[in-house]
Amino acid sequence: MSGNTFGNIFKVTTFGESHGPVMGCVIDGCPAGLKISLNDIESELARRRPGAAHGSRDEDDKPEILSGIFEGKTLGSPIAIIVRNKNQNSSDYDELKNVYRPGHADFTWDAKYGFRDYRGGGRSSGRETLCRVAAGAVARKFLALNGINVKAEAIISSDIEALRNEGDSAGGVISCVVTGVPAGLGEPVFDKLDARIAAAVLSIGACKGIEFGAGFAAANMKGSENNDAPSGNGKFASNNSGGILGGISSGQDIIFKAAFKPTPSIAKPQKAYDKDGNIKDIAIKGRHDTCIVPRAVVVVEAMTALVLADFLLMQRCARV
Amino acid sequence: MSGNTFGNIFKVTTFGESHGPVMGCVIDGCPAGLKISLNDIESELARRRPGAAHGSRDEDDKPEILSGIFEGKTLGSPIAIIVRNKNQNSSDYDELKNVYRPGHADFTWDAKYGFRDYRGGGRSSGRETLCRVAAGAVARKFLALNGINVKAEAIISSDIEALRNEGDSAGGVISCVVTGVPAGLGEPVFDKLDARIAAAVLSIGACKGIEFGAGFAAANMKGSENNDAPSGNGKFASNNSGGILGGISSGQDIIFKAAFKPTPSIAKPQKAYDKDGNIKDIAIKGRHDTCIVPRAVVVVEAMTALVLADFLLMQRCARV
Amino acid sequence: MSGNTFGNIFKVTTFGESHGPVMGCVIDGCPAGLKISLNDIESELARRRPGAAHGSRDEDDKPEILSGIFEGKTLGSPIAIIVRNKNQNSSDYDELKNVYRPGHADFTWDAKYGFRDYRGGGRSSGRETLCRVAAGAVARKFLALNGINVKAEAIISSDIEALRNEGDSAGGVISCVVTGVPAGLGEPVFDKLDARIAAAVLSIGACKGIEFGAGFAAANMKGSENNDAPSGNGKFASNNSGGILGGISSGQDIIFKAAFKPTPSIAKPQKAYDKDGNIKDIAIKGRHDTCIVPRAVVVVEAMTALVLADFLLMQRCARV
Amino acid sequence: MSGNTFGNIFKVTTFGESHGPVMGCVIDGCPAGLKISLNDIESELARRRPGAAHGSRDEDDKPEILSGIFEGKTLGSPIAIIVRNKNQNSSDYDELKNVYRPGHADFTWDAKYGFRDYRGGGRSSGRETLCRVAAGAVARKFLALNGINVKAEAIISSDIEALRNEGDSAGGVISCVVTGVPAGLGEPVFDKLDARIAAAVLSIGACKGIEFGAGFAAANMKGSENNDAPSGNGKFASNNSGGILGGISSGQDIIFKAAFKPTPSIAKPQKAYDKDGNIKDIAIKGRHDTCIVPRAVVVVEAMTALVLADFLLMQRCARV
Repeated sequence: MSGNTFGNIFKVTTFGESHGPVMGCVIDGCPAGLKISLNDIESELARRRPGAAHGSRDEDDKPEILSGIFEGKTLGSPIAIIVRNKNQNSSDYDELKNVYRPGHADFTWDAKYGFRDYRGGGRSSGRETLCRVAAGAVARKFLALNGINVKAEAIISSDIEALRNEGDSAGGVISCVVTGVPAGLGEPVFDKLDARIAAAVLSIGACKGIEFGAGFAAANMKGSENNDAPSGNGKFASNNSGGILGGISSGQDIIFKAAFKPTPSIAKPQKAYDKDGNIKDIAIKGRHDTCIVPRAVVVVEAMTALVLADFLLMQRCARV
Repeated sequence: MSGNTFGNIFKVTTFGESHGPVMGCVIDGCPAGLKISLNDIESELARRRPGAAHGSRDEDDKPEILSGIFEGKTLGSPIAIIVRNKNQNSSDYDELKNVYRPGHADFTWDAKYGFRDYRGGGRSSGRETLCRVAAGAVARKFLALNGINVKAEAIISSDIEALRNEGDSAGGVISCVVTGVPAGLGEPVFDKLDARIAAAVLSIGACKGIEFGAGFAAANMKGSENNDAPSGNGKFASNNSGGILGGISSGQDIIFKAAFKPTPSIAKPQKAYDKDGNIKDIAIKGRHDTCIVPRAVVVVEAMTALVLADFLLMQRCARV
Repeated sequence: MSGNTFGNIFKVTTFGESHGPVMGCVIDGCPAGLKISLNDIESELARRRPGAAHGSRDEDDKPEILSGIFEGKTLGSPIAIIVRNKNQNSSDYDELKNVYRPGHADFTWDAKYGFRDYRGGGRSSGRETLCRVAAGAVARKFLALNGINVKAEAIISSDIEALRNEGDSAGGVISCVVTGVPAGLGEPVFDKLDARIAAAVLSIGACKGIEFGAGFAAANMKGSENNDAPSGNGKFASNNSGGILGGISSGQDIIFKAAFKPTPSIAKPQKAYDKDGNIKDIAIKGRHDTCIVPRAVVVVEAMTALVLADFLLMQRCARV
Repeated sequence: MSGNTFGNIFKVTTFGESHGPVMGCVIDGCPAGLKISLNDIESELARRRPGAAHGSRDEDDKPEILSGIFEGKTLGSPIAIIVRNKNQNSSDYDELKNVYRPGHADFTWDAKYGFRDYRGGGRSSGRETLCRVAAGAVARKFLALNGINVKAEAIISSDIEALRNEGDSAGGVISCVVTGVPAGLGEPVFDKLDARIAAAVLSIGACKGIEFGAGFAAANMKGSENNDAPSGNGKFASNNSGGILGGISSGQDIIFKAAFKPTPSIAKPQKAYDKDGNIKDIAIKGRHDTCIVPRAVVVVEAMTALVLADFLLMQRCARV
């Protein structure tokens, strides 16, 4: 089955393996007449690029627009964007061909498909998120036209420098706020706005949890505390709902937090199963982020933007 | 846009308003030849019924199978199931016609569609989950054939009796374990198993968050701690991954927790906006659960079962 | 896989077997605020009922609306409609349990699912089209609001009376015109308006072909003849295109013809395979239409209306 | 709305404008482990290339596989293929910027999206079918593994040479036979096999009609003539059904015919509307096929192959 497409009306399909020729996406369903420049996409991709301090794969990701834009505007036809993969040192991965890296999709991918592209995680590489960011850049332009802005922030409590020196890694939490969302977005009963954002964000490889508004804390609150009380002029004294009631946006800011696990690729020696079920010692080489959370910020924003662009369009069909 | 269908191959569409004639569902894509009896569905619906202690709406929900079953087995054609709504005291809601109950979808539904069925929440009522349980009962039969079992548990730290006496309400956490899942279920990259379970569970009205395996705690762990280490015979010393790696089941138990907010309908007086934006005093009448979490357990199980049934079928198409 | 849903935004799911308790449909994605009365549906169902002259199954099909309508208007939530099956003489079919009627889906259904509801064709009965007509009635109301009308006509060249007396049957052609369609409906490149209408109409059991505008005759025309020449004021001297260019409506009337095969159920003795592959003599009992084409007119209209309602909504998302 | 994707499980998304940088497709849902070489795709694309005699655009279409294949086999991840557009003389189209070519999608595209890529038809160009052929090549490999073969044939009754000399054009009929199809493919009730093939083939730009088996002739046959009579050993004396009963394959060959209109681009002077509604004289320049039917043969085969590959996979989910 095909799981590489996201969205109902504003749809994105991504493709590409980490060490194949390109990463790419096709956006289908973007309305015609939206102004898009190459720079709109480049500037978002640049935000995903690692800072020098984090020591991660340093590629200069140059997007190419293959279709769907004419005279600076979207045509209504599919927008294909690719970024070439460079700097591929596949031999770093040779010894991992028959070993399943802990915390990675190596084993599960083999279990699913019978074989895999073992070079750099293949399709399960974090590099796939690049396509989401490119597509998200287009979605953000559409949201901006509608006064909607998505802004995320990384919260990391670990000492990244110390962990890097240990050959270990760190996780973190990303907090996200969406402003300017009109009341009414979200489709009862299964395509609730929070349900779709949850799917969007949990489809990012390292994400292990999400909570909206008061989130897990709400489980220990009284109804009288958790219900957001009116404070006049259509405003509320709190935002425990996270801007979503019954799966539909209320007009308050949309607020959620997502938890990211520490990078599973660590230099520190670990035990791992090989293909035959034997336990081996491995120390993962190659360049890996000690903490991917700062780079995941723009990915969370992109996925959220894709969801909102989709619901904005869906909402056009809500009334006769 | 239509958000009342869930699933890719094993698809469920639900319908019905709380105070309309029936609640119902249509399951399309259930494979032919599955043995289903009315009792299979009744027994799951019974688990959703409130305990006397919890003082909630006490309907005797009798399912009727309208199609798709012949000589005790699924035909491969759509299975329609309805439950009649009885005991409808719509007049309880008359005074709520023009007031937006705090923490409810009243306002957002109006904002979306321009008007709403204000009787008992209409389509946004928790009664809608009854249809999910009926469909989930069918999914569970299919899972059982494949050795898969879904089991959830409510964790409530509040003093429900005290809160009821105060006219207040409580939330809680539901913990869920799925056993017997073969490795390989889940569709990269957007239809990851955890992404789909998250969407499924967050589509339940009061759910505010979800986490898999170590979840939010993983954000503060080191990679060397969080990676599940092999312990021999294909087993692992921990299950921080929650049984899912790269969005694909690993063969370990699938483990997640979901947070539920306290029931927004409370007897205690509250402030609320009315249709004209004025702040009113309201005290919600009618029978409402002080804590819906115990009744949501079977709903969480049902939604999880629907996801797994769908992925089991999708997996049949993974290889030539 | 689930093939019982039709449409992208305005979606219809049908359910029910000919000799089960009900036939039904769920319409999801109908915009909120559309006025619908039971009579709107009854009047369309009445058009599908057989004339006395044609000697077909004479049921008084009374629709019941189970959800989605409140105070006479659509809520935006799913609209479920059922019609009870009466007058079921299942014993007519007992002897057909193990014989595959020529021209019917008996064999193919068994080949697909391993068994079937043999009573009256089960799910493959023409009675399933009743649900399409009920859903089509809702679609037509939405089209009417937008100035669109769908009108079909049966063209039967056979002598039906003579054929009935012989225990034989007749086919025919249904011609359909849609007026008032704005230019711009249809989604390149796969969801072309003609492609979707073709799928809609060919999903009606007995349909064997469809052609748009000049249709098959266009294959023998010159380009200079077939191109519709402008005649001033935005009009054209001909409508060989059938109102569709490049899969998108042009603003001219949409015109197509569909071919229907003769009813396969005939009283005249025939040879047929049984389950074991032996050839048997059969003479089909029960009440069957000598020619279903007059009753299929409203079904063709309904399916066409469903397609247009869907594309009208989709078109709302074409531009920023 | 996004209409650039075809298929339920074996899904193809195409992209690209005639005079943009590339034409491309992404195949998602192709099972893992299928052997695919570049030559498999090139050889099908070569069949779409115009013969010298037909005087059409002579590009050497070299496919590039961007993803989804590793060590000669499909990975289960999306397969992206592009073909670069060369030989683009956009200035041929400058004078058509404000004129709507008769029989083309120029006007309807503007009506839909508000503007268009006027160079060579942009997205509505016949060049888009190249992507279908590339994707169809992959589908055919999967069908071949399952013993299924798709073979089409052009039937042209016009004198093409004479028409070319007149600056006119010709249409034709394409006849298609699919052998080796097992009984049981096709999904009741809306995704009938014939309904899906009809949508697939009518989504090819110039197609104006389709008929299965006896097709339009069946409308004038008696039931006793049209029903295919058993001839022993599971065989039949005729194939009026076209190998499909109740929308499900019967095991007989699948047979259909599709009508193609004459190429609308003709050198002969014509009248046309311009953007302001005035009637202008135009004579279309550039290289155009006098008759596209011979080149459409492989496109019909490709679309048919895509449908069958999809249904083969769907059928894996029909039974428990």
